[in-house]
Amino acid sequence: MQKQLAEFIGTFTLVLFGCGAAVLAGGDIGLAGISFSFGFALIGMAYGIGPVSGCHINPAVSLGAVAAGRMSLTTAAGYIVAQILGAVAGAFVLMTIASGKADYSLAQNGLGQNGWGPGYLGEYTMTAAFLFEVVASFLFMVVILGATGKGAPAHLAGLAIGIALVVIHLVGINVTGVSVNPARSIGPAVFVGGTALAQLWLFIVAPVIGTVAAGLLFRSGQLDAQS
Amino acid sequence: MQKQLAEFIGTFTLVLFGCGAAVLAGGDIGLAGISFSFGFALIGMAYGIGPVSGCHINPAVSLGAVAAGRMSLTTAAGYIVAQILGAVAGAFVLMTIASGKADYSLAQNGLGQNGWGPGYLGEYTMTAAFLFEVVASFLFMVVILGATGKGAPAHLAGLAIGIALVVIHLVGINVTGVSVNPARSIGPAVFVGGTALAQLWLFIVAPVIGTVAAGLLFRSGQLDAQS
Amino acid sequence: MQKQLAEFIGTFTLVLFGCGAAVLAGGDIGLAGISFSFGFALIGMAYGIGPVSGCHINPAVSLGAVAAGRMSLTTAAGYIVAQILGAVAGAFVLMTIASGKADYSLAQNGLGQNGWGPGYLGEYTMTAAFLFEVVASFLFMVVILGATGKGAPAHLAGLAIGIALVVIHLVGINVTGVSVNPARSIGPAVFVGGTALAQLWLFIVAPVIGTVAAGLLFRSGQLDAQS
Amino acid sequence: MQKQLAEFIGTFTLVLFGCGAAVLAGGDIGLAGISFSFGFALIGMAYGIGPVSGCHINPAVSLGAVAAGRMSLTTAAGYIVAQILGAVAGAFVLMTIASGKADYSLAQNGLGQNGWGPGYLGEYTMTAAFLFEVVASFLFMVVILGATGKGAPAHLAGLAIGIALVVIHLVGINVTGVSVNPARSIGPAVFVGGTALAQLWLFIVAPVIGTVAAGLLFRSGQLDAQS
Repeated sequence: MQKQLAEFIGTFTLVLFGCGAAVLAGGDIGLAGISFSFGFALIGMAYGIGPVSGCHINPAVSLGAVAAGRMSLTTAAGYIVAQILGAVAGAFVLMTIASGKADYSLAQNGLGQNGWGPGYLGEYTMTAAFLFEVVASFLFMVVILGATGKGAPAHLAGLAIGIALVVIHLVGINVTGVSVNPARSIGPAVFVGGTALAQLWLFIVAPVIGTVAAGLLFRSGQLDAQS
Repeated sequence: MQKQLAEFIGTFTLVLFGCGAAVLAGGDIGLAGISFSFGFALIGMAYGIGPVSGCHINPAVSLGAVAAGRMSLTTAAGYIVAQILGAVAGAFVLMTIASGKADYSLAQNGLGQNGWGPGYLGEYTMTAAFLFEVVASFLFMVVILGATGKGAPAHLAGLAIGIALVVIHLVGINVTGVSVNPARSIGPAVFVGGTALAQLWLFIVAPVIGTVAAGLLFRSGQLDAQS
Repeated sequence: MQKQLAEFIGTFTLVLFGCGAAVLAGGDIGLAGISFSFGFALIGMAYGIGPVSGCHINPAVSLGAVAAGRMSLTTAAGYIVAQILGAVAGAFVLMTIASGKADYSLAQNGLGQNGWGPGYLGEYTMTAAFLFEVVASFLFMVVILGATGKGAPAHLAGLAIGIALVVIHLVGINVTGVSVNPARSIGPAVFVGGTALAQLWLFIVAPVIGTVAAGLLFRSGQLDAQS
Repeated sequence: MQKQLAEFIGTFTLVLFGCGAAVLAGGDIGLAGISFSFGFALIGMAYGIGPVSGCHINPAVSLGAVAAGRMSLTTAAGYIVAQILGAVAGAFVLMTIASGKADYSLAQNGLGQNGWGPGYLGEYTMTAAFLFEVVASFLFMVVILGATGKGAPAHLAGLAIGIALVVIHLVGINVTGVSVNPARSIGPAVFVGGTALAQLWLFIVAPVIGTVAAGLLFRSGQLDAQS
């Protein structure tokens, strides 16, 4: 239960602060500010709740860890439930705070949901969105597994992983809003509904393909640290 | 006295540099630049005076540490006095420097005071302001207690905590200007007066509720690191 | 093969994320956002694949390491092949994602290629471009060799080196787009062709002069840590 | 000679990259980008040449170290000569690169020199400029001495000190362009002449007052880490 509470708090924070930066401050801090918010929320939690649960706060990361042979599927299942609940709670609190602004409208301003196509940021195609999410999730998981693996300074993993999440957002917000994390996408979509809900499948499937592929690559020993 | 001097200098720096970024440079560096200033001031001091006092530089953090059972109330009282004096001194020096610009006016430009409602940044309601401050302070304290607790790399705590403060500001400046720290709010309010002073209670009550709740959660053992 | 796979992935990431930030988000995140993308991609990979290969992801760095007596020319050759292939693959994936935007045109928007002269960013002269690339590559290699050498905290090298790459980009994007890395320049140039290909020689010659000079300086013992 | 060569290279880098960001990219990256450039140049060098010389790259820091009883005045003198030469060389190389842009003019665009008063950035008074430089230098030296002192994680000092330099710039560029470092001011002033040279005294006197005061405070034992 401790680990699940930790994952709940961590994913809550990622959604509240990451999506919150977009909703409450996006017009002022821009895409770069939003990018730092997602990555820095992860860094804070990596040290805040990492000692308890490892701070996955991302179902795709937990499944990637299973693929890499570093976690049992049963434990991952418990993590994933907590992550999704945390993300939904984070999106709810964000919606409540956002509603404290006179001209905020859920329909108009959203909750930082992911998407693609006409009307969504850079209006990229579904193919580009899918490709970006798979590749970015794969590389994100390489950083995670490498930075927490043999030969790496484990205490710096949280910093490196959060910094990787910053750069992934700097590059990809225009393409998909950047998920690489099904829970982060589910949280806002539950409240926003409509297109966000209809497009949710991509932000579950693509990240998991990417992280599981990275997990299998590490399991194969092709990226083992040299001794 | 060494610890109190350290807390004085640290809180002085947080207010001078954090609020200073808003007052002296806000138009140029934007909300993102101000956010980095608050968080980076904390990181600098975490390593500068952290070895002496632990670098709380925040009465809510000291009270949260009491709630977590990591500090006596007596020691916390001494810390808090030093923090408030440091914040007031930092605001005074900032006011003096700001006055060196021909078109600066305390009434017009303020000192980076916190607030909410009509005329204050995003003009959020008091409820939204209160909710944000409680939740952000709770999560901030989770990072602090987790990053300085068992199983965490203590030498990186200052970095993680400062980074968490950056993201809290990125998200929340529009809502309340971001306090999560009664001393940081008291410093400017003392000189600005008016609304800043009238709304000060929220920036004392809400942060303390958040940090004490996090302290009690850690004390309960629900977020203990796994062995 | 493990090291070469690691170098392939790392250089792929540097080009996809660094150049990708320019192509997919440059108009929104500006030169500062692009600068952070290049440096942060390097930091992520330094901890992700650094334990395997040392994360050179830059032929000039591998040759500088040879000059410093820290790597054999044979090993460097294998690294360089992997780096160039990774960079080309990264540029290809970036081009594919970018094509998912209706108004993207390779001829118009490019792939974040390096250059100088009329029509290229600040329109600096070739002499300025050459001087910048030599000096920046030299200083970059000083950071790399110093941060991974005797007396330095090796686990922080990736962070320091990536931060150095951020500042080099903050300063120099207007001058050359910043290479300091032949592979990073080759990747986009292969697809963009034209001027990018015609000017490619400078981004091979100048970085190597800079890094080899730094390597020889370290080999001479003039920058050995004091005991 | 190794230490002096290291200080030469480090101060060269600080001026070339810090002032270079202002001159070559200031219009694009803004005051925030320039702030990161100064601080990140310091971080890169802290790990690049820090193992050799400690990376003072600032005469006021060397004199503050003397005041703190951590360095002999003779050694400091050698450091200071190397720092000033490095800063002048860095400004010269910057001027050469900048001249590669058709519309660059030393008289119009300068070299990132410090200053105050009519025509200089925020047009602050000399009193405000003096006060800012003394206080910022004092606090900067507190970070340096604390982060490299007893009880602090020495390997993170470079990071903390560079981050402190970022925030000092975020706050103060409008006031003085931020010196806190006589060498950084001397480098550009030598080539720019005029007002920059006439106002140079403040950027020598004020930083030294600040850093020596901090040095004496640490020497007194008032900020010793608790055991």
